[in-house]
Amino acid sequence: MMTMTPDTYAVNCPTRVVLDRIADKWAVLLLGLLAEAPMRFNALRRRVQGLSQKMLSQTLKGLERDGLVRRTAFPTVPVTVEYAITPLGATLAERLDLLRDWAERHIAEVQAAQTRYDQALSG
Amino acid sequence: MMTMTPDTYAVNCPTRVVLDRIADKWAVLLLGLLAEAPMRFNALRRRVQGLSQKMLSQTLKGLERDGLVRRTAFPTVPVTVEYAITPLGATLAERLDLLRDWAERHIAEVQAAQTRYDQALSG
Repeated sequence: MMTMTPDTYAVNCPTRVVLDRIADKWAVLLLGLLAEAPMRFNALRRRVQGLSQKMLSQTLKGLERDGLVRRTAFPTVPVTVEYAITPLGATLAERLDLLRDWAERHIAEVQAAQTRYDQALSG
Repeated sequence: MMTMTPDTYAVNCPTRVVLDRIADKWAVLLLGLLAEAPMRFNALRRRVQGLSQKMLSQTLKGLERDGLVRRTAFPTVPVTVEYAITPLGATLAERLDLLRDWAERHIAEVQAAQTRYDQALSG
């Protein structure tokens, strides 16, 4: 690298990897939930519609690997597995919240723009 | 829908569509650039490493359709096409900036967590 400063526009910059990671819709949704309270696997699965068991498992592993989520297994029968957000994950969840808030706030404007665009194309 | 309030965790919620859209790494990078100044197609292409001409064109069309970016063609020979951020796009770019900032600020922590995770798996 030419520079010591991370530059997300450079293809070989490690922050690109992080952007890829947090650009994952499922990761965003799961961090949002875990920011509220620790949750068990099955509870997460019930809460996020359209997320398969396999994808949930993969996404949680990725979040754990990135240090954003902590997995704890309790020695019950059957074993209970709980996921909790880490302090690092909490700092990210805060910023993702602002993004979710934007989506909920501006969805009507985006949909209106899409309608105008599609009508202009077909008109 | 059971509720009038957008709920990003519901699969049929339109805000999910917006989350998908803004979860696009290229869209995030392009909005960040256009938030600084309007730019021509080729200038954008040179600036964002790893982005093919086709992907750039597709991503810009999507951003234009969502009302986040405005495309202006100037009647030069050959025609000059410039892309500029819209007021709506600027509100989104502000929030995405916080995300990019997070990535640049916490990349070292994430990489350290990944190393620990991989060592624990192989150890």
